[in-house]
Amino acid sequence: MTDDYFMMQALKEASQALEEEEVPIGAVVVINDRIIARGHNMTEKLKDPTAHAEMIALTSAFNALGAKYLPEASLYVTIEPCLMCAGAIYWSKLGRIVYGADDDKNGYRRTSRENWPFHPKAELVKGIMADECARLMKEFFDKRRG
Amino acid sequence: MTDDYFMMQALKEASQALEEEEVPIGAVVVINDRIIARGHNMTEKLKDPTAHAEMIALTSAFNALGAKYLPEASLYVTIEPCLMCAGAIYWSKLGRIVYGADDDKNGYRRTSRENWPFHPKAELVKGIMADECARLMKEFFDKRRG
Repeated sequence: MTDDYFMMQALKEASQALEEEEVPIGAVVVINDRIIARGHNMTEKLKDPTAHAEMIALTSAFNALGAKYLPEASLYVTIEPCLMCAGAIYWSKLGRIVYGADDDKNGYRRTSRENWPFHPKAELVKGIMADECARLMKEFFDKRRG
Repeated sequence: MTDDYFMMQALKEASQALEEEEVPIGAVVVINDRIIARGHNMTEKLKDPTAHAEMIALTSAFNALGAKYLPEASLYVTIEPCLMCAGAIYWSKLGRIVYGADDDKNGYRRTSRENWPFHPKAELVKGIMADECARLMKEFFDKRRG
């Protein structure tokens, strides 16, 4: 199977999104030349701006495999992933990312914005009860280390 | 209501995660001094490395409000968001982010890694059927513009 073949499958998902009047982006997750999960953008239907094709395909892959990490998998997605999806791909330890067209507006390469990944109008406050917040983490990792 | 009060509520969620042997991070979404959604890390339980406290609280907030955007909302989270969650916060247009302790390893400020947000071992391929992939997008946005 070729990259073109699997991208065609991702395009089918994107066409499905188009039919549903969603921004037409599609994705498939492939292991050993088999598609184990599919997804297309559902932000309108779910009224959830995080319901991107990649997020849906990845979550479906975790469910299908009962595994949290996908080092052997390839993700095919029709458009360059955004920063959120790039982060999700990172956490999944996915081994190979294949995308079609660049996204000059929302692609991950354009949205790093020098350590300000939030909305331009968003306000950020930090350090609220920081010691208590950190203590729980320390407790967890201390215990895990035994 | 103060930031400390709402962070205490996020800490309650984090404690809940700790009880469930999850990495103890908690979050709440607040509008007009009311908590409209809560979440804590569930990556182990769901075997989904994207099931972070912020993602769960945000998705719950979209569901509760039937709205995709949260410009009036504040998100309280016990630990600095990762890049994926920062991206999700961006898409939600959330107005105010309040976090407790810094995360020097996985916080969004450390993980931008000069335009390489993927896992260090991941391979990236782009341009596969790029024209077809872009064409669907153009069709969608042309139609939307009327």
